[in-house]
Amino acid sequence: MKAGIITIGDEILIGQVVDTNAAWLGQILSETGIEIRKICTVSDRHEDIVLVLAQILNETDIVFITGGLGPTRDDITKKAIADFLGVEMFFHEETFEKITKMFERRGIPMSTSHHDQCLMPHGVKILNNSMGTAPGMLFYHKDKTIISMPGVPYEMKAIMTEEVIPWLSALSGNTIIHKTILTSCAGETIIEDKISDIVADFPEYLKIAYLPALAQVRLRLSASGDQTESIQKTVDHYTAALSERLSDIIYGYDDSSLEKEIYSICKEKGLKIGTAESCTGGSVASRIVSVAGSSAYYIGSVVSYSNEVKRNILKVKSSTLEHQGAVSEQTVIEMVDGALHTLEVDVAVATTGVAGPDGGSPEKPIGTIWICAGNTDIKITYLLRAGKDRGKNIEIATVYALTMLRKFIKENY
Amino acid sequence: MKAGIITIGDEILIGQVVDTNAAWLGQILSETGIEIRKICTVSDRHEDIVLVLAQILNETDIVFITGGLGPTRDDITKKAIADFLGVEMFFHEETFEKITKMFERRGIPMSTSHHDQCLMPHGVKILNNSMGTAPGMLFYHKDKTIISMPGVPYEMKAIMTEEVIPWLSALSGNTIIHKTILTSCAGETIIEDKISDIVADFPEYLKIAYLPALAQVRLRLSASGDQTESIQKTVDHYTAALSERLSDIIYGYDDSSLEKEIYSICKEKGLKIGTAESCTGGSVASRIVSVAGSSAYYIGSVVSYSNEVKRNILKVKSSTLEHQGAVSEQTVIEMVDGALHTLEVDVAVATTGVAGPDGGSPEKPIGTIWICAGNTDIKITYLLRAGKDRGKNIEIATVYALTMLRKFIKENY
Repeated sequence: MKAGIITIGDEILIGQVVDTNAAWLGQILSETGIEIRKICTVSDRHEDIVLVLAQILNETDIVFITGGLGPTRDDITKKAIADFLGVEMFFHEETFEKITKMFERRGIPMSTSHHDQCLMPHGVKILNNSMGTAPGMLFYHKDKTIISMPGVPYEMKAIMTEEVIPWLSALSGNTIIHKTILTSCAGETIIEDKISDIVADFPEYLKIAYLPALAQVRLRLSASGDQTESIQKTVDHYTAALSERLSDIIYGYDDSSLEKEIYSICKEKGLKIGTAESCTGGSVASRIVSVAGSSAYYIGSVVSYSNEVKRNILKVKSSTLEHQGAVSEQTVIEMVDGALHTLEVDVAVATTGVAGPDGGSPEKPIGTIWICAGNTDIKITYLLRAGKDRGKNIEIATVYALTMLRKFIKENY
Repeated sequence: MKAGIITIGDEILIGQVVDTNAAWLGQILSETGIEIRKICTVSDRHEDIVLVLAQILNETDIVFITGGLGPTRDDITKKAIADFLGVEMFFHEETFEKITKMFERRGIPMSTSHHDQCLMPHGVKILNNSMGTAPGMLFYHKDKTIISMPGVPYEMKAIMTEEVIPWLSALSGNTIIHKTILTSCAGETIIEDKISDIVADFPEYLKIAYLPALAQVRLRLSASGDQTESIQKTVDHYTAALSERLSDIIYGYDDSSLEKEIYSICKEKGLKIGTAESCTGGSVASRIVSVAGSSAYYIGSVVSYSNEVKRNILKVKSSTLEHQGAVSEQTVIEMVDGALHTLEVDVAVATTGVAGPDGGSPEKPIGTIWICAGNTDIKITYLLRAGKDRGKNIEIATVYALTMLRKFIKENY
């Protein structure tokens, strides 16, 4: 079954509000095996709604409309649906009774706009709204279906969850299965080249999408069909093949993240960790503590933005800073030693580099960043050569630091 | 001028990624006086892209396409545009030279997919991408315009800001003047109530938009017309009136930020600052160092996630931790004192609180966060009562800490 989503609202068109209704609908519908073909946002102009409804219904089997916010907006949507279907409006007594009761309970007087809420296009099948006054509406049009819901997110979600999803599940036989593979510290193109032969071997119903972010790429596999078991087997088979090929850069699957993986591995191994950050300036720490429960293994960080802090708190030797500089392998190693000692942790990771836009030199251009992870016995270091953008350099260095921290623990404990 | 936006990406259709590109485009385009009529998301199927392009171009004057992420996806978009226009692809030498140079500098070998990036539909006008390899493209088609850009947000934004917006401004005769007033630590409704009489007095061509974020609200004034000078006067007049009314919560204007304001004030006063963070876990530090040049006044941070670090490095008294707890006014004051002493700075700010989702108690529920800013003589403290969401609590506390740091310096130096 192919679906389209229409969201109505000027506030979305002008970017004042991000369309999270469509994202939520896209997710829940694709999980129930429906293929979303198109999402459109239009203003609450009558003719725009009629036009987009005709277009999307022509391309799909079912259209979901979330109708802007508030009674006025809903009226325009209802009128547009009625005109598209070529039917009249009628006064829906049951809705009127429901709204009247609701208002009596709350002691609020009814207004004209609430009265108008009870006008419905002929042929409507009412979808109960347990969270508000405006009900959802379902219409059959030839062999297609139109579902219209209010734009208030919790009302829309209630109607979907309580009324629409049960109805859809009963209808469809198809399944869609997703699997996301998470990688870091390798570019999209490099990954594509590495796995091109495996991807070429995919059956037609299996697709791959590359979702890159700074220093990270997510690979999303999607398969659809009516044979749930064999689709699952195919996804599992190719996930295993890709995982083997990309084993050096994969850190997790699906909704995980580097910091969540660090959570799991630290809890599993019973380790205390700490950080010492120069150029990343607290970014590594803030990523680690973004995970609930991180206080169980994360002790703290010394953000040593100045050489004095490197010397005084992290005990980096003056001679190292003087002869090799703050941005050097020896400094980053001594920063890890300092963090291990000062914070009294098992494993630490440190960063020092030239984030830019100033401070570069011919030997150490902007983007030169040293990273070290280690314990008192073993250290691994990496010289990252990033670009010229300060913000990106900090983010990339943060991803590398988290990757190295996880890798170090994985390989040494 | 009427515009449409097309975003291409399965990840948006299935709700894995929220379409922030369209929101950003909607905002910046409507600010330049363009009317957004439709936003559509489709998958990267060739025929879907061609169809939606034809539909939207029929309804508008200019279409903006953000083309999925990465080289593979871009290829499909380019091919669809070429087929829609009825033109062939050609190898664009200048793009090839640019990419080659970029890769030589980074010492990365080029692959086939980078080669394919240089294929362009005939009739293309290249829009320079200062942030990546895939350039933006502009096509004239009859009396309409198609603009296609990569889907990576910072690349798309760079192309829009550096290439498209100047081109659009030159096209239209109208002047649009914007002024953004930045506030923190007050809600949208409170601000609306405070300034409702001033806003009621606005002339018709002056509009206000409330752009709320966590613990921050931006007020954007927009005025448009062909009388540049009188429009500017009106904007200045109402900016002054609003600034006077909201003086206690305004921290800056336009593209500024709390951390940029801290930069200015620290440089101006010649101060060294530091931070001591418990619940914010490095967020305050990372916001401060996001500003280029922050190493001139920012010395560092002690992220004291554990009580040991609070005791050992920040010298918070054991008796304080024992009797008043880590989340207390006395602890946050001693953290500031510890930061002042250990980091050897003039002014410090500290945070300690229950970020959640665990760790709350009847006396100190989740969201209880103490913040202190001060020097050796004076301290200001604030008890923030935030909500139940860990991520939001950290962000709100960070905004409060930066606001208090700025306020303290402004009032005491």
